[in-house]
Amino acid sequence: MELDPWGAGEVKNYDHVFKKFGLNPIPASISKSLKFRLFERGIVIAHRDFDKVYARIKAKKPFINMTGIASSGPLHFGHKVDLDLFIFFKKCGAKNYFSVSDIDAYVSRPDKKIPSLETAKKWGIENLAHALALGLNEKDVFVQSQKESRYYEFTFELSKKITKKTFEAIYGHLDLGKVSANLLQYADIMHPQLPEYEGPMPSVTGIGLEQDPHARATRDIAKRLPYGIVTPGFIYFQHQSGLKLGTKMSASHPETAIFLDDAPEAAAKKVSRAFTGGRPTVEEQRKLGGRPEICKVHELLKFHYPNTKRWEKLVKDCKDGKWLCGECKQFTGKFVSDFLKDHQKKVKTKLKIAEKIVLGK
Amino acid sequence: MELDPWGAGEVKNYDHVFKKFGLNPIPASISKSLKFRLFERGIVIAHRDFDKVYARIKAKKPFINMTGIASSGPLHFGHKVDLDLFIFFKKCGAKNYFSVSDIDAYVSRPDKKIPSLETAKKWGIENLAHALALGLNEKDVFVQSQKESRYYEFTFELSKKITKKTFEAIYGHLDLGKVSANLLQYADIMHPQLPEYEGPMPSVTGIGLEQDPHARATRDIAKRLPYGIVTPGFIYFQHQSGLKLGTKMSASHPETAIFLDDAPEAAAKKVSRAFTGGRPTVEEQRKLGGRPEICKVHELLKFHYPNTKRWEKLVKDCKDGKWLCGECKQFTGKFVSDFLKDHQKKVKTKLKIAEKIVLGK
Repeated sequence: MELDPWGAGEVKNYDHVFKKFGLNPIPASISKSLKFRLFERGIVIAHRDFDKVYARIKAKKPFINMTGIASSGPLHFGHKVDLDLFIFFKKCGAKNYFSVSDIDAYVSRPDKKIPSLETAKKWGIENLAHALALGLNEKDVFVQSQKESRYYEFTFELSKKITKKTFEAIYGHLDLGKVSANLLQYADIMHPQLPEYEGPMPSVTGIGLEQDPHARATRDIAKRLPYGIVTPGFIYFQHQSGLKLGTKMSASHPETAIFLDDAPEAAAKKVSRAFTGGRPTVEEQRKLGGRPEICKVHELLKFHYPNTKRWEKLVKDCKDGKWLCGECKQFTGKFVSDFLKDHQKKVKTKLKIAEKIVLGK
Repeated sequence: MELDPWGAGEVKNYDHVFKKFGLNPIPASISKSLKFRLFERGIVIAHRDFDKVYARIKAKKPFINMTGIASSGPLHFGHKVDLDLFIFFKKCGAKNYFSVSDIDAYVSRPDKKIPSLETAKKWGIENLAHALALGLNEKDVFVQSQKESRYYEFTFELSKKITKKTFEAIYGHLDLGKVSANLLQYADIMHPQLPEYEGPMPSVTGIGLEQDPHARATRDIAKRLPYGIVTPGFIYFQHQSGLKLGTKMSASHPETAIFLDDAPEAAAKKVSRAFTGGRPTVEEQRKLGGRPEICKVHELLKFHYPNTKRWEKLVKDCKDGKWLCGECKQFTGKFVSDFLKDHQKKVKTKLKIAEKIVLGK
């Protein structure tokens, strides 16, 4: 893979890589027209067959909106990007299929991380409470371990449509737990198009570029099924990187990420300690300007601050040396802690229903 | 595999093979005490942990009785052996789990044989009608594609408990459809012991010797599950061979087998054309006696004729040259056609309920 999907750093050779893998860049017309920050700011950078979904949005016709979270740990601002995207499409009039991927999480993660289905379900409840607090409704959600038999039957059907050779070529391995997890993922994405659900219809699933092998496998299998499935569409987004220089956001290194259940004050402190593009002295910064392209605080705003006009102004002021790191960290810290305070209040009200959904009782 | 589980021919070196694979011969005390032809006549020849089930039968305590039929074609007298065994254990007071293995049949069979799940279900309905006619009740049966989510969740759980290496060592391949089918088989055998079903309890499943790899895999996985599952027990039966010399019963060669939906007269004709142990002339046969050990008509009676005393008398008379092939073929043909007439009447009354069970509506 020649792509580093993490980081807001300058992106080189994307066109070359897109061509190689058959990905299409998102046209500027679409990015502008959707009026959503993840498109406007180039975070969603490529797609496969998203034009079909875009046409449905413009025509106010339904389409399938599918994503999921493997419930294997706490959610951070990186996961929030997936969720924000899902909620955006929900507002565009989609048929919504948000998967609490508890079986996937258990079978694809090592035992030391997810020792039992119960552990996966515990995370499923917690993750789902956050998703509901962000704007999902109960009817937008399904839980793998609670699905009806048609879904599972379909999962097994898929196992006949992918060969060992294809699987190894795509993934480079044949770990049986991971094979099972992948079959579930294919089913998650495609089952909404079965006659028992919505029937054939364009679909969109947002993923990171590194997950393109899954997308290719899914699209390949879709063509070999007898249900007239519209080849599933995908959009590819960049990942928000970690708060420290050269890091990814990671649950094993809590200082690299802001978690959705971080205490608001602690989150603001993480912002204040993040790597910035600031200059050694205030004088230099006034003179040379900041470097948002390498700044983790800027990246946080780029991925999450909702008001694009205001955000553009901040970037310009930073580059012009008018908006300094101290000020910016305080502003961003307050933005994050205000968001978390409000969000966490909502999460508390969603835990019971999340438990009911995940455990089916 | 050094075992040829087909045929009533003389069995050599079984003890040696049993030792090698860790199988136990069925003790004579058990064979006699159960008063069932498949035990009495040495057709059930070996076991793993059947003594636990035997103890439960003697103590009139429940145990799990599990078998299944991959619904991929018409049933013949070979399948009837599985069913007769299952019904015998049902009468011994078992908790019964008879699997209509429709998903298994679809994913493990080539497309030219089972092109779709619908085809597997069609066979499922037909096979199940026969099973019900033989004595199963609706509550003894489950259909893979109609199971509740807990069963499927368990199937996926199992995928984490068997490695690629183990799988290849046992089966010599890693065909993904067959992997899926095997996971379903393991789940079929073990799910009755989950807390949501009967809880841990000795179980018995009758299989052919060539299926011992499945049994070993199942028993191996059982030990690595967190549910306190009693290592599943197995009994091994010989397969009834084909009606022609050197054949197996096979749906692709209808003359080798009597099918449960053969017209009674046609079935009697198949008997009359079967290979026997008869001598070239009546005189020789009167003098030397018949050879039941190579006779397909004798084999049919051995596997299916219910009255053991009468059967022993026939064998003795045959060996003594008193009971000749013509007479025997007429007798056996009538036995088979009478059975089929009666059975097929019952099947007609079971088709509707079988359809309701398999399709869930």
